[in-house]
Amino acid sequence: MKKKPVNTVDYNMNRAELKAQILAKQSYLCVGLDTDIKKIPQHLLQEENPILAFNKAVIDATKDFTVAYKINTAFYEAMGIKGWQIMEETLNYIPKDIFTIADAKRGDIGNTSEQYARTFFETFPYDSVTVAPYMGRDSVEPFLKFDGKWTIVLGLTSNEGSKDFQYLPVGEGKLYEQVLTTVSQWGTPENLMFVIGATRTDQIAHVRGLLPQHFFLVPGVGAQGGDLAAISRAALIEDGGLLVNVSRGVIYAGDGVDFTDKVRAAAQDYQQQMAALLQAVNA
Amino acid sequence: MKKKPVNTVDYNMNRAELKAQILAKQSYLCVGLDTDIKKIPQHLLQEENPILAFNKAVIDATKDFTVAYKINTAFYEAMGIKGWQIMEETLNYIPKDIFTIADAKRGDIGNTSEQYARTFFETFPYDSVTVAPYMGRDSVEPFLKFDGKWTIVLGLTSNEGSKDFQYLPVGEGKLYEQVLTTVSQWGTPENLMFVIGATRTDQIAHVRGLLPQHFFLVPGVGAQGGDLAAISRAALIEDGGLLVNVSRGVIYAGDGVDFTDKVRAAAQDYQQQMAALLQAVNA
Repeated sequence: MKKKPVNTVDYNMNRAELKAQILAKQSYLCVGLDTDIKKIPQHLLQEENPILAFNKAVIDATKDFTVAYKINTAFYEAMGIKGWQIMEETLNYIPKDIFTIADAKRGDIGNTSEQYARTFFETFPYDSVTVAPYMGRDSVEPFLKFDGKWTIVLGLTSNEGSKDFQYLPVGEGKLYEQVLTTVSQWGTPENLMFVIGATRTDQIAHVRGLLPQHFFLVPGVGAQGGDLAAISRAALIEDGGLLVNVSRGVIYAGDGVDFTDKVRAAAQDYQQQMAALLQAVNA
Repeated sequence: MKKKPVNTVDYNMNRAELKAQILAKQSYLCVGLDTDIKKIPQHLLQEENPILAFNKAVIDATKDFTVAYKINTAFYEAMGIKGWQIMEETLNYIPKDIFTIADAKRGDIGNTSEQYARTFFETFPYDSVTVAPYMGRDSVEPFLKFDGKWTIVLGLTSNEGSKDFQYLPVGEGKLYEQVLTTVSQWGTPENLMFVIGATRTDQIAHVRGLLPQHFFLVPGVGAQGGDLAAISRAALIEDGGLLVNVSRGVIYAGDGVDFTDKVRAAAQDYQQQMAALLQAVNA
């Protein structure tokens, strides 16, 4: 495997750099590359590598309006070895000043989490990876040990099944609150973010109260029904403190030969809404 | 990618077949292929593909004594694309009458869990995959929809961090108990197993009381300190109902050119202990 020069500390993105990107672009949009061959425009199927061609076109069309790309590893793993090659080429194609997220939801005992951390911080040089909390501290800490990298722990998710366990009463609160307050002690707002689902905007205000400084990665806007303005009013802080992910609502905005125009317009529309919301919080 | 003939219903292993294997071999040993290039015998480093050579040697040495192999995907992912190739070749090398487990600990919203299920049931034709429960029902069900395949959900894990959340008081019990009883309603003892850590044998008896019929995948014996006899007395049922995983205690049993003798002896020693324990439960 070739050694990639991007895998150096120089290219890591710390909080100040992320803030600078957010303020420069007036955007906290994260575009989710959950690419499914059944959903991409038909004409791309003639390409030698349709998914990679699609991803590159989406990145070209959205990079002026987005500060992060989230690659949902499941969609690439399902294609087997070829999928990992496409994932690697997609990651390498993303401009280095845009934050990258491996949405992989890993987590295991310590020696295994170390291997996952190596996977997504070294072998594939992402800026961050999503991690599941159920196995506790020693399943999360190996990720936090990587200087200049970010660990994004599942707090409150946007799916229906979040009710099954995350809302269970624990002590005087709920399980997800316990997860957030406990995990927040294992890292800092400089190396730890949380996934906070967007479909429950009342909860996001509450979570911002619990964690006033951390960045939240917010999925669920668009196809899953989250309300951008409500989320932003509840959780935006001075340097942003939010990455709002939209996947299907941007990448599948068009399906003809002109799809990149529609993808670009969808991303720009989110960016413009975000610019206004950022100005309101910093007013 | 070549189509693999093993990816058919004919090769799936249902509970009756798993029982038949356990009784025929008088073993419920699962060997964990957590292969780390830093830990394999030095002389193998001259091989073109040292990790694959090691895995094949370990499989040859242990297949008479084991009813399952567990491939810890993290160790392969960390090597990048080459690692997935090694994982695929290792999986294909395992005899078809031995149960295979992708220890991947996946779990995400429904459309993403579907992709993970395709990954480990179709693209790589495992018999089973481990799944994390935090995201709830719609994160687990896509795995359960695959006929002839098994979903192995994290219940109680063997690591120190299991205390952080799994033991939290929820209602009149603990979180892990709630996870076990809730998740058990989503599948059946014919398609759903649970990971139950072995370092707390008092808890395993308690869990067997909660779930009298399900198979448990028990990690933590050997390097992590679990006691095989105590676990087995607490949780063995008539058809086994247990797969006890040993990774480091078997695969790294030797480090010279004769390492396969020691690996074989280690696996056989576990098998002989298990034969006696099985006879006791069926006496």
